[in-house]
Amino acid sequence: MRYSQLFGKTSKTVASDADSINAKLLTQGGFIQKEISGVYNYLPLGLRVLTKIQNIVREEMDKIGGQEILMPAMTQNESWITTGRNNMDVLFHFKGQGDTDLVLNPTHEEVVTPLAQKYLFSYRDLPVAVYQIQNKFRNEARAKSGLLRGREFNMKDLYSFHVDEEDLNRYYEIVKKAYFEIYKRLELDDITVLTFASGGAFSQFSHEFQTINENGEDTIYLCEKCKIAINKEIIDTQKTCPECGGDKLKTVKATEVGNIFKLRTKFSKAFNFYYSDSKGQEKIVEMGCYGFGPSRTMGTIVEIFNDSKGIIWPKSIAPYHVHLVGLDLFDENIKTQAEKIYQDLLDKNIEVLFDDRVDVTAGAKFADADLVGNPIRLVISKRSLENGGIEFKKRNEEKSEILPLDKIFSRI
Amino acid sequence: MRYSQLFGKTSKTVASDADSINAKLLTQGGFIQKEISGVYNYLPLGLRVLTKIQNIVREEMDKIGGQEILMPAMTQNESWITTGRNNMDVLFHFKGQGDTDLVLNPTHEEVVTPLAQKYLFSYRDLPVAVYQIQNKFRNEARAKSGLLRGREFNMKDLYSFHVDEEDLNRYYEIVKKAYFEIYKRLELDDITVLTFASGGAFSQFSHEFQTINENGEDTIYLCEKCKIAINKEIIDTQKTCPECGGDKLKTVKATEVGNIFKLRTKFSKAFNFYYSDSKGQEKIVEMGCYGFGPSRTMGTIVEIFNDSKGIIWPKSIAPYHVHLVGLDLFDENIKTQAEKIYQDLLDKNIEVLFDDRVDVTAGAKFADADLVGNPIRLVISKRSLENGGIEFKKRNEEKSEILPLDKIFSRI
Repeated sequence: MRYSQLFGKTSKTVASDADSINAKLLTQGGFIQKEISGVYNYLPLGLRVLTKIQNIVREEMDKIGGQEILMPAMTQNESWITTGRNNMDVLFHFKGQGDTDLVLNPTHEEVVTPLAQKYLFSYRDLPVAVYQIQNKFRNEARAKSGLLRGREFNMKDLYSFHVDEEDLNRYYEIVKKAYFEIYKRLELDDITVLTFASGGAFSQFSHEFQTINENGEDTIYLCEKCKIAINKEIIDTQKTCPECGGDKLKTVKATEVGNIFKLRTKFSKAFNFYYSDSKGQEKIVEMGCYGFGPSRTMGTIVEIFNDSKGIIWPKSIAPYHVHLVGLDLFDENIKTQAEKIYQDLLDKNIEVLFDDRVDVTAGAKFADADLVGNPIRLVISKRSLENGGIEFKKRNEEKSEILPLDKIFSRI
Repeated sequence: MRYSQLFGKTSKTVASDADSINAKLLTQGGFIQKEISGVYNYLPLGLRVLTKIQNIVREEMDKIGGQEILMPAMTQNESWITTGRNNMDVLFHFKGQGDTDLVLNPTHEEVVTPLAQKYLFSYRDLPVAVYQIQNKFRNEARAKSGLLRGREFNMKDLYSFHVDEEDLNRYYEIVKKAYFEIYKRLELDDITVLTFASGGAFSQFSHEFQTINENGEDTIYLCEKCKIAINKEIIDTQKTCPECGGDKLKTVKATEVGNIFKLRTKFSKAFNFYYSDSKGQEKIVEMGCYGFGPSRTMGTIVEIFNDSKGIIWPKSIAPYHVHLVGLDLFDENIKTQAEKIYQDLLDKNIEVLFDDRVDVTAGAKFADADLVGNPIRLVISKRSLENGGIEFKKRNEEKSEILPLDKIFSRI
C-alpha cells in the first residue's frame, strides 16, 4: 500500500478526550477514529490489525473443533426475560415494528442456547462447540480507555455443550490451552496469567486471562511460582494459590483479555434444554462459555507495546510487516530504485506500506513510521544508496544498518 | 468436515412461516435458522457461503482501489438530523446512557461523510474510495422472503469521494464493471441486467443490478437487444431504452442484487465537506455510493439455482466443493477406504463434506446431499467398490459414473 493513498493518515494532535495510551496512539496513528463515546470506526490500518487478531483466534478455535457460526446483533427481549437477565444495566432496549421489544445482545447465551436446542437431541449429537466473531453492545455507564471498554466492541465467543460435567471439564482444559496458544501468537504469553475468579452460583471458579501491565485497570494477586493469580472479587475467600497453596501473593495491575466460564446448567435449565442419553433418559445439557475480545486485546497490546515515539506491534498482527520510507524521491534515479524495491516486496508477498510522499520531510516520515509501528523500517535515500544500499532498522531496536539492495529479502 | 459432527443438520419439516424458496431450502438444508422475523442465525454451512460471497466482493473492491474500513452499527441520532433523514421509517431508535439518542445504521452516509471529512482536505487527497462489509438494520414494516428482505442483514457499501462530477462519473463506470465481475463469479452475469432507476434530486439516474427470475419481487422493463432495463419507478418518464432509444421493452420479474448511486453533493453539503483545490479555493466534495447485499444475494442465488430436491450452488460459493457419501460403513474394509479418500481430499486441500453417519439410510444421505447442494457428489459403497471404484456425479447433472479411486482427483 502506498502511504500517499492510504485513507486515515497520522495526526499530531491528540484527541482531547483520549483518556488512555491506546486511544491516543491508535487515533494519532490513523488506526481508529471515535464515532461516539465507546464506539469507534476502524480505518484501513486498524481493520488490518483487528482482522489479524480475529484470524489467529479463529484458527485456534478451529483447531479445538470449534465450528464458526454467526448470530445476530439483535433479538427479542423475551429471550432475556426467560433467563431473568432482561434488567441488566448494560442491555440496550428498543422497539421494532408492531411494538415488539428488542435488545442488542451484549453476549449470546440467550441466542445460542435455544439455537443449539433445535439441533442437539441425543447423546450422539454431543459434545458440540460453536463460536462466533461478532460485535457486541453494552450500554456502559462510562465508556472509557479507548478500545478497552466500549459500547460497541468485537468479541469472539465460544459455547460448548456436553452430556455431563466431566465432559465439560475435559473440554474446558482444552480451551484453556488454546487461549495460551493465542496469547503466545500475540506475544502476550509471558505476561498473561490464568486468574481465578468467581464461578457464580453453579461453579466454584471461573477463570480470567489477565495480562500484567502497569496501566491495567484490574488488581490481581499473583503466585509468582505457579504463574497463577486470584482476582480481587474472590481474594477475601481464596487467600492462597489454588495450585500450590502458597500464601505469598504479589499484588499487580493487569488487564483482562479473556474469560472462560462453566455455565453448567444455568441456561439449559432456563430454556429446558435436555438430551436423551444412551438409555433414552432425558438429561440436562451442560454448557461452557469462553470469551475473548479482539478489539479489547488490540487496545491492550498498544498499552503494553509502545514507547515515546509510538506503537511497537508484534509481528503477527502488525498492519504491515515492512514500512518502506522513500526519501529524495524528486530524484528520478532514487524514485526508480524505491519503486523497484516496493514492487519486489509486493512480488514476494511481503506486506509493505510504502511512504512515497514527496511533499513530506524525512523527519516527519520517520516519526510516522515510529508512530504506526510496523516491525521493520527500510529507508531508501540518496545517502543510503551512496552508502551502498538501503537502511534496515527494526522498530524495537535502536541500531540500523545499511544492506545491499539484494540482501534485504533474506533479512525480512 | 464430517457431517456426523456438523452443527446444523438438514430437517425434513418446512418452517411454517417460510414464505419463500430461499427461506425454505436454506432452513431445511441447515444453512440458517430464524431468530426473529427478518433476523437469522447463520449455521456453519450458511456462514461458509456468506463468507465466500463477501470475499468475492472484497477482492473485486480491492481491485478497483477500494480500501476496507469498518464503521459501527450504532451512531448518534444527531448525525441523521444533520441530513434530515432521522424520521426515516426504517430507522431503529434507542436510548443510551445519559439519555443520548442513538440509532442503528441502515446505511452509512451519515457516518462515512464526517469520517472522510477528518482526513480529506486537499485535491491531493482525492479521489478516495472506502468500503465496509457490515451488518445493517432496517425496521421493516414486514420482513419477508427469507434473506431477501431482513431487519438485520449483511451489506457491502462502497463510498467514493471526488474533486468534481467528471471524476465521479469516471469512477462510477469502473464500479459498474466491477459489479459485473462479481456477478460473473457468482454465475449470475447472464441473467443480471443494469437497470435505470431514479437519480433523486441530484442525478438523472441511479442504477440497480436486477437479476431476472420468476420469483423476483420487482418488475423491470428490459431491452433485450442492449440487455439494459428500466425500473418500475421511472418507466412512466423513461419509456425507451436509454442505450438504443428502442421502445420494444419486455416486462420481466427480477430481484435487485445491487444499487449504485451518484450522491453528488447531497451529503457533503449537509456536513459542509469541502476541499481546497490546486489554487487554494474551497470546493465541495462529490460523492458516490455503491451497495451490494451479500446475504440478499445468497437468498437470490437459492431462489434461482434449485430443483425439487434442493439447492444447486455455483461452485464459487458452495459450502463445500465435494459431498462425499460413505455407505456400508459398518464394513471395516469400506470404512477404511472411505476414510482414506476423505483424508486424501483434505490433503489436496479440496473442500469436502464427508457424510460418515452409520445410522442413516443411503436414501436419506442422497436426499441430504441433494438438499445441501454441493457441486460434486462422490459415493463410496460396497457396490461402487465392486464396480471398480467410486461413484462420481455432478449436482446439476443426472448421469453418474464409476471412477477408479486414483482417477477422482483429476476430475474434481
